[in-house]
Amino acid sequence: MIFVPASVSCIFSPSYGKDAKSSGSIGVGFTLDLGIFAEISENILFNQRTIDFPTVNYVLKKTGLKGVNIKSQLPLGCGFGISGASALAAALLSEKFSYIEAADLAHEAEVANLTGLGDVGNQTFGGVVVRKNAACPSALSFEKFYFDVELDFLVIGELSTKEVLKENRSEIKNEGRIWTKEFLKKPTLENLFHCSYQFANRTGLIEYVDDVVEAVISSGGLASMIMLGKSVFAYKGFEALSEFGRPFKAKISCCGVRWVEGCSNSKQIGRFAER
Amino acid sequence: MIFVPASVSCIFSPSYGKDAKSSGSIGVGFTLDLGIFAEISENILFNQRTIDFPTVNYVLKKTGLKGVNIKSQLPLGCGFGISGASALAAALLSEKFSYIEAADLAHEAEVANLTGLGDVGNQTFGGVVVRKNAACPSALSFEKFYFDVELDFLVIGELSTKEVLKENRSEIKNEGRIWTKEFLKKPTLENLFHCSYQFANRTGLIEYVDDVVEAVISSGGLASMIMLGKSVFAYKGFEALSEFGRPFKAKISCCGVRWVEGCSNSKQIGRFAER
Repeated sequence: MIFVPASVSCIFSPSYGKDAKSSGSIGVGFTLDLGIFAEISENILFNQRTIDFPTVNYVLKKTGLKGVNIKSQLPLGCGFGISGASALAAALLSEKFSYIEAADLAHEAEVANLTGLGDVGNQTFGGVVVRKNAACPSALSFEKFYFDVELDFLVIGELSTKEVLKENRSEIKNEGRIWTKEFLKKPTLENLFHCSYQFANRTGLIEYVDDVVEAVISSGGLASMIMLGKSVFAYKGFEALSEFGRPFKAKISCCGVRWVEGCSNSKQIGRFAER
Repeated sequence: MIFVPASVSCIFSPSYGKDAKSSGSIGVGFTLDLGIFAEISENILFNQRTIDFPTVNYVLKKTGLKGVNIKSQLPLGCGFGISGASALAAALLSEKFSYIEAADLAHEAEVANLTGLGDVGNQTFGGVVVRKNAACPSALSFEKFYFDVELDFLVIGELSTKEVLKENRSEIKNEGRIWTKEFLKKPTLENLFHCSYQFANRTGLIEYVDDVVEAVISSGGLASMIMLGKSVFAYKGFEALSEFGRPFKAKISCCGVRWVEGCSNSKQIGRFAER
């Protein structure tokens, strides 16, 4: 069984090249100690349910695999890169490609379906990943950092990357580059929250979650919006987040993709995946 | 400043293809929470000394960089993949390549200088890496595991990869494949020691360190030989190892390459690098 970590995008600047390999996003994101567990199966199962999963289908078609059984600890469409994680798992499980070829295929599947532009890159390498060019994993230039910290997360609702990218893309593109550079000037946890908040604020994206973010900040914590979901990530924000729903804790992890004997924490499967 | 982890090779099966990209080793190794810290400089410095470092020179020639200042926590030529780590650091510091292109260049430098065949692959991805084909990082198929454990290490002396590979290579090639497969059947820490010991024993390589390994095993610990160095890695072996020299402890880490503000544990620099 394979584990692929969830990816939280904090800042991003989308860029579409002539093909999927040269499309992606400059930006900053990090991988978690939560994610998905997957194994080969007869059809596509997501937390025991048969679902329509175009991004995974795209990969399966290229691998010849019939399906993949995905056990996710986090929900789809809420900014945790679960579509990218599932696509990467499917590509790797086929054993048809090198690790990086599999990563490029998963990235291609994300770009083709507009489900993500940087998650697979983050997941391929793990940690706090600063993507310095918009490209597939094999062509990616990045700097990787690690902050040994547990963060708080709250999922408020889904948000379609596709829909958001239809509007104010040029603003997102410009601000994404600016705040990625700002983060690299001082790659600390505090500055990650600062730059992510500034990015969300100046692009107007913060509106989806501004009351929640403000509540955490006014309670003395750090918080910003997860790109792209109606979701918030925070430091010392659990109590404030609890006023708005059921938050959960997860650690930043740089371990990335790994093979596991079984789902080590099966109790958690789906624990945060349903709202 | 960049950190590249040390790589400990436990089992390996060397294979030389038509070029460096198709040369490498099938095998099992793991990365540590110790390694090297490096930054760009005017010449090649290794723990404050100017040294002749062909593997790093090979990379520098392709990058245009004049030199790199390497602060290593572990010695060269004793099986910790420090040559590969230094080459990878030099390639990444140039910012001339994507991460994987830089990794391929470092691997090429290792193959060209016969200093290592699998270390750069392990270091590129981090963790307990089972290399399933002999190839450069971009073409590598592998499975990655993680054991959250602290191990004991003893460096007895240097061993030239080049010299060892001159002799009994076919035996090493065959046994390396056999015990890599055996490890994959049961990817646990205990089995890693078992398979590594069987590999070292059947190839005769164990002779370099057999008394030390036996001492650990007869004291109730686990131990085997580091490939390739007159060095031993062990679990619960610190006391037994102390009879033969000055052992040190290090954790298996899957964090791999990362960028750091400074050398976080500068006290340790060179601490284990001199014998």
